[in-house]
Amino acid sequence: MPRNPLTLALWQATYVPVEAGAAEALRQLEAEARQAHALGADLLICPEMSLTGYAIGAERAHALAETPEGKLAQAVAALAMRHQIAIVYGYPEQHPDGHAPFNAVQAFAASGQVLGRYRKTHLYGDMDHQQFSAGDAAPQVFTYRGWQLGLLICYDVEFPEPVRALALQGADAVLVPTANMLGFDEVPRLLVPARACENRVAVAYANACGQEGALHYGGLSTVVQADGTPLACAGRDRQTLLVTLAPSALAQARLSSPLPWRRPDLYGALTQSKPT
Amino acid sequence: MPRNPLTLALWQATYVPVEAGAAEALRQLEAEARQAHALGADLLICPEMSLTGYAIGAERAHALAETPEGKLAQAVAALAMRHQIAIVYGYPEQHPDGHAPFNAVQAFAASGQVLGRYRKTHLYGDMDHQQFSAGDAAPQVFTYRGWQLGLLICYDVEFPEPVRALALQGADAVLVPTANMLGFDEVPRLLVPARACENRVAVAYANACGQEGALHYGGLSTVVQADGTPLACAGRDRQTLLVTLAPSALAQARLSSPLPWRRPDLYGALTQSKPT
Repeated sequence: MPRNPLTLALWQATYVPVEAGAAEALRQLEAEARQAHALGADLLICPEMSLTGYAIGAERAHALAETPEGKLAQAVAALAMRHQIAIVYGYPEQHPDGHAPFNAVQAFAASGQVLGRYRKTHLYGDMDHQQFSAGDAAPQVFTYRGWQLGLLICYDVEFPEPVRALALQGADAVLVPTANMLGFDEVPRLLVPARACENRVAVAYANACGQEGALHYGGLSTVVQADGTPLACAGRDRQTLLVTLAPSALAQARLSSPLPWRRPDLYGALTQSKPT
Repeated sequence: MPRNPLTLALWQATYVPVEAGAAEALRQLEAEARQAHALGADLLICPEMSLTGYAIGAERAHALAETPEGKLAQAVAALAMRHQIAIVYGYPEQHPDGHAPFNAVQAFAASGQVLGRYRKTHLYGDMDHQQFSAGDAAPQVFTYRGWQLGLLICYDVEFPEPVRALALQGADAVLVPTANMLGFDEVPRLLVPARACENRVAVAYANACGQEGALHYGGLSTVVQADGTPLACAGRDRQTLLVTLAPSALAQARLSSPLPWRRPDLYGALTQSKPT
């Protein structure tokens, strides 16, 4: 299936206070989905933990957690169908053994079908570790409009390894819901462009903005094309970033892909559990 | 052994035409070593294949190749001792089986002792593949003035894997002789800073400048500290970049190192010889 141009909408949102509940968060998501579709977007990407908030504490994260087929999921799938737009959103996913939930994302097609799922594997800092269990599976690509897409979450993308793993599966673009705080601008400005360049994949990094409890989010959501050049970068405030990925730009970047020149025979140390 | 401040001199040089021979190249290196020592440098880093030129063709590369204890090596060790400065230089290293030589670098201490050696493992493009055999060993760190140092060459640093391999061995700084052509500014401006940031290692990228045959080199030699911020960046022309790496900056950057949060159990695909 040939790739069609893929228009992404990145929703740089402030979190709805958890006390306001999922109904308000879903109302705001619906307004955003309607607008993004009207602007021509094929796929809407929300920040990390977009419907419950991120800094909610371990008890609430546990209480709000649901299965990938839970009520929030059903509501998002219905929105995707109603507004004819694919949606990537974040939520706390119930752990089958009753442990702290996973920090998860799920992608629904405009048909309401599940496109892909992912559980964050690189937890960041005390809050992430208190609220969540780390995922135990490497990310997997899925197909949408002829594009091979992968999902990662926030801190994951600061590590070269998970993006490389997706690139080796043939990913064309990596979608990264995040909750990156003020003071860490090197992530959207340096590391995200480097991930794109070194793998010849597009990367869409959808951040939160504004304040949530004691946390201040840094915005700067960005979409970087597969040669490492930013296509668009948001500011600090609430904003929808609309960007079209062109198949021709991807094909052009791939002409000089470094992937065929890797030396996996020499990379054994990267999979060892302790530094040699 | 505690780290002392480490002052690097990066010699952004034009290549001596191969017809002018090694004597002229060594004369220029001696002038540079004398000056770098006078400026307070502890260690002088030359570009890739610094004494023979890079774009010399397969026959000349083979003819000029020597062992790591060859005549060029002896001359460079003597210069290091005479001017009391460590020197990292590049040369074609004889292949034990008579194949095309390795694209190699060697580091001498001011005592004339060998500090470290490395053979380029990621060859770039037709010219590299015609002139050289690829090295078959991952890079190894060595100690100098209390710093754990690693060597890579040019295209190697565009891959996250070899820099990560050095970081996992405890590298504090990675020294990268290169011959990066005009049109590839994303390497010094994006990928080198990203390698530093994602590993919390300093990176020194010493490029050539000017013209050599049909090739035009892009300069922009740079030293990036371990948090990913450039300490200095050269322009396009002949220049010596003098930079002091402070132990305190390294220690500060290490406080937020991502290395403890890697998930090597999930990185198996990176060592597989073919994409899954």
